[in-house]
This record gives sequence, C-alpha cells and structure tokens, in this order.
Amino acid sequence: MIARTDACPADETGVLRLGNATGLTCRECGNTVPLGPFYACDQCFGPLEVGYDFPRLTRADIEAGPKNIWRYAALLPVPQDIASRPTTEPGYTRLIRADGLAAELGMRRLWIKDDSGNPTHSFKDRVVAVALAAATEMGFKVLACPSTGNLANAVAAAAARAGIRSVVMVPANLEEQKILTTAVYGGTFVTVDGNYDDVNRLASELAGEHEDWAFVNVNVRPYYAEGSKTLGFEIAEQLGWRLPDQIVVPVASGAQLVKIDKGFTELTELGLVDGKPWKVFGAQASGCAPVSDAFAKGWDVVRPVKPDTIAKSLAIGNPADGPYVLDVVRRTGGAVADVSDAEVVDSMRLLARSQGVFGETAGGVTVGVLRKLLADGQLDPDAETVIINSGDGLKTLDAVASSVTVPAAIKPTIEEFEQFHG
Amino acid sequence: MIARTDACPADETGVLRLGNATGLTCRECGNTVPLGPFYACDQCFGPLEVGYDFPRLTRADIEAGPKNIWRYAALLPVPQDIASRPTTEPGYTRLIRADGLAAELGMRRLWIKDDSGNPTHSFKDRVVAVALAAATEMGFKVLACPSTGNLANAVAAAAARAGIRSVVMVPANLEEQKILTTAVYGGTFVTVDGNYDDVNRLASELAGEHEDWAFVNVNVRPYYAEGSKTLGFEIAEQLGWRLPDQIVVPVASGAQLVKIDKGFTELTELGLVDGKPWKVFGAQASGCAPVSDAFAKGWDVVRPVKPDTIAKSLAIGNPADGPYVLDVVRRTGGAVADVSDAEVVDSMRLLARSQGVFGETAGGVTVGVLRKLLADGQLDPDAETVIINSGDGLKTLDAVASSVTVPAAIKPTIEEFEQFHG
Ligand SMILES: Cc1ncc(COP(=O)(O)O)c(C=O)c1O
Ligand SMILES: Cc1ncc(COP(=O)(O)O)c(C=O)c1O
Ligand SMILES: [Zn+2]
Ligand SMILES: [Zn+2]
Repeated sequence: MIARTDACPADETGVLRLGNATGLTCRECGNTVPLGPFYACDQCFGPLEVGYDFPRLTRADIEAGPKNIWRYAALLPVPQDIASRPTTEPGYTRLIRADGLAAELGMRRLWIKDDSGNPTHSFKDRVVAVALAAATEMGFKVLACPSTGNLANAVAAAAARAGIRSVVMVPANLEEQKILTTAVYGGTFVTVDGNYDDVNRLASELAGEHEDWAFVNVNVRPYYAEGSKTLGFEIAEQLGWRLPDQIVVPVASGAQLVKIDKGFTELTELGLVDGKPWKVFGAQASGCAPVSDAFAKGWDVVRPVKPDTIAKSLAIGNPADGPYVLDVVRRTGGAVADVSDAEVVDSMRLLARSQGVFGETAGGVTVGVLRKLLADGQLDPDAETVIINSGDGLKTLDAVASSVTVPAAIKPTIEEFEQFHG
Repeated sequence: MIARTDACPADETGVLRLGNATGLTCRECGNTVPLGPFYACDQCFGPLEVGYDFPRLTRADIEAGPKNIWRYAALLPVPQDIASRPTTEPGYTRLIRADGLAAELGMRRLWIKDDSGNPTHSFKDRVVAVALAAATEMGFKVLACPSTGNLANAVAAAAARAGIRSVVMVPANLEEQKILTTAVYGGTFVTVDGNYDDVNRLASELAGEHEDWAFVNVNVRPYYAEGSKTLGFEIAEQLGWRLPDQIVVPVASGAQLVKIDKGFTELTELGLVDGKPWKVFGAQASGCAPVSDAFAKGWDVVRPVKPDTIAKSLAIGNPADGPYVLDVVRRTGGAVADVSDAEVVDSMRLLARSQGVFGETAGGVTVGVLRKLLADGQLDPDAETVIINSGDGLKTLDAVASSVTVPAAIKPTIEEFEQFHG
C-alpha cells in the first residue's frame, strides 16, 4: 500500500471506528483496500474513495440530530460519537430563497446555500471537521494542509478547538485576511514563495517524511473530501427532502462539486429523497480555468495551467479532481464555464446588492458563471436552481475595495445631510 | 405622543399585526401606550418597552420552528408569518462548549455563544430583523440607523434582502472592513466627521424630519431591542432548556445585556425553563467605560464620556440603556468591569488560540472582563458560565495585525521547511 503510517491504531487492533465506512475503493480500477491512512491505489495509483454499508436511515433519524454536519454522521467516515467531541461544529448553514437575484436574472426559483455562516466562514470547515475526526481515529497527531487560504483558516481553527498541533502552508501572496486569521489561531504557519501547486507538492513530500501528520487534503484526502457531501445533504433536507434541478458549484480541486453530486446520489439510494434527474454546473475564474477549458474542448483529462486571478481561493492550476468534475457534469447534463476577474467583482457586488449576501471572490465566480450560463441558454431560468456561496467577502475585501464608492465625510448636521444625501 | 408618524397603518385600521405584543410601557413611570411607532413616554419622556400577552407555549412548539430567531416569533413583536418573508434569517448560532478556554482560566463549565455565525457576522442581525419586521408593519418605507459599524452592515444587508432603501450613518473613522462591507450592500451611506454620539444625535434629528424612515435604534428602538432576547432564548434552549449561572455580555448602549436578562425572565415566567437565580455581568473597554464607572461608584445614572478605544463597536459614550444595565447587574448580583485595549488584543488572541474562535474587539473585551472578574473573585470559576462573542475578528483585523507574527516566506523545499519549521 502507498502512504501507510505506523501511527495507525488499525495496525494493532484492526478496528477503526469510522461509522458505516467499510473500505476504500480506487476510483480508476475499482480495487478495494481496508480503511486506513491510504489515499492512492496500490494497483494503479488512482485516488481512493470511501465506501459504506449504510444501515436503514430515516429522515426523522437525521432530523433528531444536532444542527450541524454531525446530523449526517451515519453517512460520514467518522466515529459515531463525534458530536460530543470538541469540533468546530460546522454546517447547517442557511439556504436562502434568492428572489432578489432571481428577479435580476430572470429566473423563477433560485436558492443560495450560504456557507459563509460556517465557523471560519467557508465550506472548508466541513471537510476539515471530517478529516480531523478520521485522522484522530487513525492515530495521526498533527493536522496539516497546503491551502489557498480558506483551508488554512479552517485547519488552524479546528486544531485549536481540538487542542492539537497544526501545520499550515500557504502561498505567501494570499489575501492578508486569510494570512492574519491563520496566524491568530496559532500553530505552525508556513508561507511559501510559490503558487498553490508548489505548496501542494511540498506538502506531498512532507507527508512522506512525517508519518503522524495528517495533511487533510493529501494523505487523508478520501475522508476529507467526504465532508462536502454534507452540502448536498443539507440542500436536500432544507428544500424539504427534495433535490434541485440544477446546481452551480465553484471548482478549484473539484472535490466539492464531485462530492455534492455523490451526496445527492446517496440520498436517492437511501430513499431519503425521491429519485429525479439533476444537473451539476462548475464555475471557474478565467485566470485559472483548466477544468472549464477541458470541458470546452471535450477532453477527458485536465491540462495544468499557471493561475492568474483575483479568485485566489480557486487558484489551483493542477486540480486533483478535475477529471471527475468532467465526468459528473457530462453525466448529469451540466457544464463548466469561466468568467473574467472583472465579472467576478461585478457579480460579488450584484449578490450583495440584490440579496444582502457578501460572498468572497469564489462566490463572485459562481454568480458570474450562473449569469453566463443563463445567457448562453445552458441553464434553464425556469428550473429550480441552487448556487453555492462557499466563502466570505470579508476575506477578499481588496477585490471590491477599488470599485465601491465610500462617500466623503459630512459634518453631523441636518443641512450637510440634506445637501449630500437628502 | 412623541414620534408619531402618519405612515403608520394603525392610523387607518387600528390593528397592527405584531403577534402577541399588546402595547408599549414606559420603563420609568409605567405609563402604557398602544403599539405604534413610539419610543418615548408622553408623560415623562422615559423609554418605552414592548409588553405582551403570551399564549401558552411549549418547548415543542418552539422546537418545531425554523432554525433561526423566528422559532421565537411568538415572543417577539413581529407579524407571525415572518419566517416566510425575505429576511436575513439570523440566529440559532453555535453555543460552543469552551473547554480549552476554561482550562486556561481554571473554570469548570464555560460556553461561548458565538454570534459571528450570523449573516453579517454580529448579533446586530437579530435586532435589525425584528426592527425591520415591525417597521414594515407600521408602514415605514426606509430602514435607517446611526451605527458603530456592525449595525450598519446588518441594516444595509437586511434592506438589500427585503428590497427596500437603507440610510446608514457611521463615524468616518471606523474600521475599513465595516465601511467597505456597508458600501457593497448598497443603499444610502453617510460617513460623518464625528464620533458615534454625534452621529446618533444627527439621526434623532433626521427621524423627526423623515416620517417614513425607521431608524432601527432610535424611533423603532422598542421593537429593535427585543431582538436581543433571542440570545437569551437560544442559550437556554441550547443548554437543554436550562439557564446558566452566570453570563458575561459586552455593553455599548446596554440594550443587548438588558434584553438577554429579559429573555431569561420571560422563559421562566412561561415555564419553559425552571426558575433559578442567574447573574449578569457587563463588559466594557476602559477607553469607553461609562457604565463600568457608574457601577464602581455606586451611581444610578451614567455620566457620558468621550470614547477612545480600539473596541470601536462598543464606543458609545452616552449609552441609552446604561441605567438599566446597572439595574440588571445589581438585581442579579453581577457587576460591570472594563479592560484596557492591550488586554482586549491579548484576549482576542487567547480566544482564537484556545478555542478556534476569532472574535472582534468586542469579543476581546468580553473575554478580558471574564478574566478580570475571575481574578477579582467576582465570577465563580465553578459555576456554569456563558460568554457572548457578539462579532467577528475579520472586521477588526487591525487590532491584532501588529501583534501576531507572520513568518517570512520559504522556498517550497523540504530543506527550507525543516530548517525553519521542522
Ligand atoms: C471559498 C472556496 N470555494 C470553493 C473552493 C473549491 O473547492 P474544491 O477544491 O473542493 O473544488 C475553495 C477551495 O479552496 C474555496 O476556498
Ligand atoms: C459586536 C458588538 N457587540 C456588542 C455591542 C453592544 O450592543 P449594545 O449597544 O446593545 O450594548 C455592539 C454594538 O454595536 C457590537 O457591535
Ligand atoms: Zn486502482
Ligand atoms: Zn413615563
């Protein structure tokens, strides 16, 4: 096996308490290996994915759970008492009926899944919480990651909460909000002279050297990625146990998009929602659009690019799940598209003005692609649509700073007020 | 009556749909007036407070409601169908078991009510949502406020969501995060050369001139303030329908503290929790500590000060609810105390490091006062304690920027990593 670690308690007892998870299956060749700290297939080097043997589960079982992702613990590879441990308790974020934005875009039924309500204000709190739970069970001692920023915040915060050490590595040119916030949570913080793909490579090398370090998105990636299924679960539950017709998801590594689709599939198989078709759409910034390019060209593989976009959280030039994104959007009848940085800013402002939701650049990418695919006729304006706001505008303030107008200060008198603003 | 407006539908029909609210009562002389856009007593100019005739209400009734403040609609002065209207859906934020911070402080049972999970990341989304619901019912056309920053964000966002105009006024020297965010949501935005108390005075004058403008914390203040009761309701419900022994609350105008206490009282009277004593503690920054001063000196009145503190959200030198804060803390056996700006920063960092919660300066004030009152022996380290984190560290980044260390960038090689961080 690749990426084995001697720190794993399974080595001694053979039993990992990871709920209903039963093993890891290669997404390429179907080879199955036992649960453990493995992430690549020992036959073909393909990525591994968690498999389960789910029990009968009712809506009421889930509804009786805590108001965070642990209500879906039975569908995740985590110890089933996880809700009683110190975690950041992510999830169960707002699903907002977006009539204001829908009106601007000529749509009928639009919803925003607003993940800025998470503990560190991005969807990354979900995946980190699952990775930490599984990593602890497998005996890892340190929580680590290479990150485009949001993951750094989520890892440093989750480790602080759990009282374990973190090692977080980011490109040095990230937004100062993401840098400072990571530093405040504490832990080992490494800024790297290079882009995300350089940092990611370094992390893979370090994972080989430090056997008890769980790099959430590298050597425990199969567990980590499962956390994004909870976005799919929550959307369905919040719609009243129903799937939407269309969903638009931002794409960096592509894991979030792939796992939302997996979440919908699992709910259907479990009979928790009625079966129906859904279409998945991916959103990228034109300055880092390797998956959108591959989609447009009809390729099955994704050619790496060197990112250059203000949407830094999505600036992954060599996306691990790119090919699986292509599979999902093609299978469901969706698409992947990209928008320019100017459209990203414009869309961030549209979202704030029309809905009172201030998303980060990734949210601007998603709304921008929503607009573009509507204009193209690839999205149906009459179908029920959900878009993901995966991050927070406060973390990418510079993107809007130069385009919004802050009026000059007035004296505190009625006269000045009426003169300038009456 | 003072502050009547002709825009009020009660003028025509006499019926305002404000749930179980029955009238407004003067907090000074007990004089009662009908529901309407009134905020000061026509007998003595004292502040008015909403009175109710509550129906029998069970825990199950509440638990069946939406996962936001509208689950408590029966206890708020709002139309009872409010959950189906476009609001920001604030509330039901995390109550986090704070074992890490408790260990640092030698406490036994400490909880953090983390209101940074609200839509615009402060508790102000609660009060604004209630104010907007009542104001709309009373026929106001514009949502307005003077603000120390968080309220500005909350009003601009809530108005954007509801599709009505906002008029937001702030001191020009606020944190850029609060300034830019307000601007992004749109609406009329006024920056004022002066401190909050100057802005507040201007707002009171403007409320007299513009009869269809609801200044949430001025002319609809009785409704607005009720929104903070939901903090008390949620804490009790999230503790399993139980009241804590002690609670520490940041104080600017003092409304939040007073209303959390009112929330506990109402739950007790309704039989939704068992009656028991609780102590309420107030937290201020030493650079703006008029209520803490008055408490220390044994005064019943609060002498206005000119604020000078990094805790800008709490920089209200002439707090409207100051005397009522003194009443509550003295009645319950609590206290009000204050800490220096250096202690605020230190406490923000302690909270982040020990719990993974990055609160704003107001959170630092609250944790700082928690520490101080424990050291003084005024807080019992063995009693069950809740502290409020009312805002978000991302909005007051400058406070920590100079005190956290961001390491110099390394090259993406194992050698450099091990040399600097191994
Ligand atoms: C805010 C935000 N949205 C979306 C993504 C994309 O996630 P994924 O890498 O799973 O495609 C990221 C990744 O960092 C992110 O930070
Ligand atoms: C973050 C934060 N906490 C606490 C307060 C204090 O609220 P109150 O004015 O109700 O005392 C404010 C007021 O603006 C605030 O912004
Ligand atoms: Zn394989
Ligand atoms: Zn009176």
